This record gives sequence, C-alpha cells and structure tokens, in this order.
Amino acid sequence: MLKPTQVFSPLAEQLEPEGAFVYLDLAAEARRKGIDVISFGIGQPDFLPPREVVDAVKEALDRGFIRYISTLGLPELRERIASYVSEKYGVDVKPTEVAVTVGAKAALYMAISLLTRPGDEVVVQDPAFPTYECVVRHAGGRPVFVKLREENEFRLAREDVEREIKDLHRVRGIVVNSPHNPTGAVLSESDVEELIELAKRRNLFIISDEIYEDYVYEGRHRSFLQDPEWRDYVVYVSGFSKTWALTGLRLGYVVAREEVIRALDVFATNMYSCPPAPLQYAALKALELGTSWFKSYLEEYRRRRDAAVEELGRIPGVRVVRSRGAFYLFPNVRELMGRLRVGSTDELARRILFEAGVVLLPGTAFPLRGGDGYLRVSYVLPIERIREGFRRVREWVEKVGG
Amino acid sequence: MLKPTQVFSPLAEQLEPEGAFVYLDLAAEARRKGIDVISFGIGQPDFLPPREVVDAVKEALDRGFIRYISTLGLPELRERIASYVSEKYGVDVKPTEVAVTVGAKAALYMAISLLTRPGDEVVVQDPAFPTYECVVRHAGGRPVFVKLREENEFRLAREDVEREIKDLHRVRGIVVNSPHNPTGAVLSESDVEELIELAKRRNLFIISDEIYEDYVYEGRHRSFLQDPEWRDYVVYVSGFSKTWALTGLRLGYVVAREEVIRALDVFATNMYSCPPAPLQYAALKALELGTSWFKSYLEEYRRRRDAAVEELGRIPGVRVVRSRGAFYLFPNVRELMGRLRVGSTDELARRILFEAGVVLLPGTAFPLRGGDGYLRVSYVLPIERIREGFRRVREWVEKVGG
Repeated sequence: MLKPTQVFSPLAEQLEPEGAFVYLDLAAEARRKGIDVISFGIGQPDFLPPREVVDAVKEALDRGFIRYISTLGLPELRERIASYVSEKYGVDVKPTEVAVTVGAKAALYMAISLLTRPGDEVVVQDPAFPTYECVVRHAGGRPVFVKLREENEFRLAREDVEREIKDLHRVRGIVVNSPHNPTGAVLSESDVEELIELAKRRNLFIISDEIYEDYVYEGRHRSFLQDPEWRDYVVYVSGFSKTWALTGLRLGYVVAREEVIRALDVFATNMYSCPPAPLQYAALKALELGTSWFKSYLEEYRRRRDAAVEELGRIPGVRVVRSRGAFYLFPNVRELMGRLRVGSTDELARRILFEAGVVLLPGTAFPLRGGDGYLRVSYVLPIERIREGFRRVREWVEKVGG
Repeated sequence: MLKPTQVFSPLAEQLEPEGAFVYLDLAAEARRKGIDVISFGIGQPDFLPPREVVDAVKEALDRGFIRYISTLGLPELRERIASYVSEKYGVDVKPTEVAVTVGAKAALYMAISLLTRPGDEVVVQDPAFPTYECVVRHAGGRPVFVKLREENEFRLAREDVEREIKDLHRVRGIVVNSPHNPTGAVLSESDVEELIELAKRRNLFIISDEIYEDYVYEGRHRSFLQDPEWRDYVVYVSGFSKTWALTGLRLGYVVAREEVIRALDVFATNMYSCPPAPLQYAALKALELGTSWFKSYLEEYRRRRDAAVEELGRIPGVRVVRSRGAFYLFPNVRELMGRLRVGSTDELARRILFEAGVVLLPGTAFPLRGGDGYLRVSYVLPIERIREGFRRVREWVEKVGG
C-alpha cells in the first residue's frame, strides 16, 4: 500500500515542469562533462537595471522594512503602477484596480484559477508559456488549443480561435500573450481589437500576459487594456522581470476590475500572505525613473535579433520569421530534422546541446504539438556569442548531415 | 448578465480573508478617528534579527543576485537547512528532502493542495490558522474540525481526533500546528507520539506547521519529524518569519520525502517560478549564526506572557490558560460577554477596539466555532504596553459592565 505522503491530488498533478528549466539542468550536465555551452535557453535579459533600483532595496532594508505589508503590495506602489499604466496606455486605472504579486507568474496562477471553473474551457495559444494550460487544468478546466500559424507570423488570429470554439458551449476565456513567448510574435492593433470583439460577442474573459510589452522592435505594442470596456473582459498581467531585468526579485502585477483584485487579495492571503516587503522599493524606484534608459538596450536587442536571423538563415534546412517582439525567435527546423533523420524536436535539441554545445529549447516545451519542428532561440547574449553559437550549429549540421 | 470578469470559480471562492488582517484595517480606521490604539492583533515579533542577517541581503544585491534561481531555492541553502533541522531534531534530512518557499504559507498552500484529493477529508484543529481549512476546501476536500478543549490546555488530543473520524472513510490526513496559533498550546512528546500512532494506524498524512517551534517557555518542543518513519507520514513546515523576525522576507521551508519535494518543485514552478533570489542570503546567514542570540528574546517573551496572564486575571469575567508556547494567549471571555450582554465575540472585539482602544482578535477568526467566546492575545509588545492595554480593557469593563 502506498504511504499517505505518496498519494497526490489529480488536480495538483495537472501541473507540469517547465521545459526551459529541464534544459538548464541538461546544460549544467553538459558543462560538467566539459562541454563549453552557449545558451539560447533562458528567458531573462542579460543587462542590469539602473543602479538606483537595486540600491532602493538596500535603503529599505536599512530602514527596517522586513515586516509584513499589505497582501496586494505597498499602497504607494499600487498607486504608482496605476498612474504608470494609465499614462502608458491612455487609460484610467485606479489604485484599487492594481495588485502587486510574487512575479507575473503568481498573477497568472491566481487569475487563471480564479476565472476558470471546473469544466470550463479556456483558449490557450499553441505554442505558449506552459503555465497557462497547466493552471487551466489544475483549476479543473480544459484548455482549448489554438495553433499559431507560421504563415501568420505566429500571431493569434480571431478566425483561428473562432474555428476552434464554434461548437463548444463552455468556453469561458482566452489566455493571450503578446509579445509572445516562445515565438516573439506581436499582435497588431487590429489583431487585438478583433480578439476583444470576439470576447464581447461570446462573453469571454481575456487574461493578457503582457510581460514583454516593452520589447517591440517594429510598430507599437497594443495592450488589451486599451479597450474602453477592459474592466468587463480583461485581466492584464505584467511585471518588472523583463523590462527592468529583475527576474530574481519576483515583482509582478495585475490590472483588473476591483472585484477581481479583491478576490486576488483573498487568494494571495492564503497563498503567501504578501509579496516580500523590501523588494517593493525596487519597483517604486523603477517607476520613478521611467524607461528612457531602456531605449539603448532595446536597440541592442534589435541588433541581436537581426544577427540571429542572419545566422539562422545560413544553416541548411532552417527557416525563421523575423519576429517583432520579446527576445525570442522560433525557427522552423522540420527540413533539418528530415535531413538529419532526427525523430523528434526534443532529440534534435539534445543533440545540438551535447554535440554542438548550444542550448536551443525544443518548441515542444511550449507545451504541445504547435511547437513540433521548431526551436526557441532566446537572444539574450552578446552578438559575437550569438554568431559563434549559430556557427557551431551550422558546422555540426554540415558534419552530421553529410 | 454577469460579465466574464465577474464570474469566479467555486474552488477559488473557498478561500477566505484572514481575520487578523481585517482587524488591522479596523485598527487603522480607529486610529484615523483619533483613537490611541494598543494592538495585541498582529502575529509577528517586535525585535530585529542580528544585523548581519539583513546585511547579507545587501551584499547579495551588490553581487548582482537579482536573477532567477532554482525553483526550490539556492542549493546551498537547502543543504544548510537539511543539516540545521537534522541537528536540531536528531534526524537525518537530506538536501533533496528540503524545499525553500515564499513563506511558510506557500509551503502550506502547496502541501495541502498536493495531498488533498477532491472529496478527501482532512482533520483541522478548531480553532486554527484559517488558511488550513480554506486550502483544504480550495483543493476540493472537506475539513473535519476537531475542537480543542480549554481543559486540555487546547492541545490536540488523539482521542478527540479519533472520535471525530471513526465513522469517516475518506480521511486522508491531519493538519497540526504546535506551538499553536491562536491558543499558544504546545503538544507534549506523548501527544505527538499518539497522533503519529493514529496516523500510522489509519494511514494519514500529518502536515505539521512548526513555525513557532523556538517559542516554547516550559518543556521542549517535540517535532513530528522526530518519528523514525517521518518520510511516510510527515510534511514539516517552518521558516524564518518568527524565530528571526523576518516576516516581510517571506522565507519558508518544507521538509518531506523526496517525491513530495519533487512535486512541490513542479507546483512552485507554476506558482511563482522561484523564491526571490537576494533574500535567500538572509536565510543562509541566519543559519550560519545559529540561535544563541535568540535566548534573551525568548526570556523577554516569557516575561511578557506572564505579565499578560497576570493582567488578564484582573479583568472580571475573563479566565486564561498560561499557554506554554508561540506568543499567544487565548483568554475565555464567555462570562464577560454574558455580563456585558454582548451577542458575539466579534462584537466584543470591535467594542474593545473602538471603546477601549485595544486590538484583541475574536477567536472566531480562527476560523469557526471553536474560538467562540475567546479572544486572541498576541503579546509582541513591551511589558508596560501590555499592562497599559489590559488596564484599559479592565477599566472599560468596569465602566460599561456597571
């Protein structure tokens, strides 16, 4: 008989590990074997935020801010986020419509769990950040996958969603992410408007993960918050991890109607009491400084993307969309797999890691079929390393592919 | 018709706000009305940890530790917790049996959610920290309340558990907390052994919240980990919030069998990616320093408890058990309520706040019937304030009670 600490809830078992972290472990294994690894695997920026942002935490510690704070974060931070987001997107967000969370991930976990009832169907992009569909299932819901088409630059198209849900009767919402992990796709203004129009017509929520909102290289980011009726349909999620390169401080936030924020207050009370107190001051300082310092980094990231696209184009059997946002590319490697007689995307990624010393995540880590035959490239490293990494892959392909 | 952002999951709605936080808001309201408030409401120590502990975070920030770390915390911290707990309780915990979490609360949320299947029955003390029973229901389970008896000094007795579960067929486990919030009860060695014996006989898990383990004024704390078969039955939860007075850093940990830790790894990945990186260094430093500095604080807290017991004894209609642990007392105010013709414990607590300027939490905030007719006293303030607070209550009672 199993012992009581060996029997787990089927709802908890809906949660799955993240492919990105699996590959971090594999990369460590490769390094232990003496392989010099170039990693396109991790989704975090490689620059440092302005010095003052980190110093603000040190000052907070000196001032003794090591006690519980409000569950939804410091009131002054919620106020500042409200005005920041309002100004950024020309909307009118009130402080009571803001919650600070332990990373954008806690925001997503809570928002999806709150809005998905057991038996509900929720549209998830395929490929997508794996947490979305795991948490839908964890909440007792059923993810409805809408495949992103390469020929549409991986942008989620209303007609594709409509086709998938037209015969379904328990569809409750859509989890959307633009700029998009893992493809780098950026929804256009009309993409966003059409999705909101569909949400209104079918009475669906839109949980919009906009954590990469400042990483857009052509055109402008359109937020789902920009719809005048956002309170009725939209839960907006963002944070300080990407723009301010503060992944390790776990500073996320949600903008949503007040009832949702009140429910998240109760949720977070039971989940972690409050976000860590001293780190809140990094966020406050970040918003005080604004993002003008960020422009030069954005330019650098655009140059990296272009270098990566160029190098990928030189590898036989690989083609790539020049995605407009985030810091990801999603090259199609199906022809390469055929040429090398590699059976699965995961096998290809493992061989590239252990034989060429380069981490590229298999598209299937995000999380199902839509990423089959694709690799995710995170170009968060210097241009010369990017070129060196893809040169290694090209040489490996030329060697093993005859 | 309700809008899609107004319809919430019934599972999410099982979560409820914490009475302690409700009273923090009420205290703020009282202060705005010009009332000088003495608060026995909040459950956090009032001293500062050793300077080096907080400085370790500042050093970590200077060294750039603002990136993602492993989901279960820094490997070196998990190692150090394993040896700390092993030495403390004479057991043999391996680093792979330790998870660092965002406060003990995240540990409890995940552990309860992991081990409670929909339909399972889980024993919860009444009164108890409200999160336990909320999260059992949130996971689809049913809490089975076992009333703590004042005549047994509020200690959870095996025979009381046995009586409640004898006709039940889906009992899966027990959530236990010693030293206990809100009563201050400390389980004896034989209490713990008998509960484990019951767990073995009925094949139940024991999720043991031992966050107050170092606050024991008479006798010694007995950990559920001290049973040689702990891996099969026990999930131990603790953290740095109480002993090190670091509530605002949200540093908790779990000790459990490796399968549980691996499942928590996946859970935490989906819930918040990892605990905040720089704060881990406070925990590392804390364990390096040990707890010898804590002895003088413990002595001070014992003196406070004794002062509070003495003052409570002077209030007509109040009687109190001299609880041996945590920093709580749980005076019985039933006679007082009768004398003042106050209809509910909540009404009594509100009147004491707004008429006498003293925050005492109603026992019913923890969370059901077991606390009816009791107040929770958190004696985390200087002795003169403790005496002043209860003097105010006594004078108020004498005034309004005729």
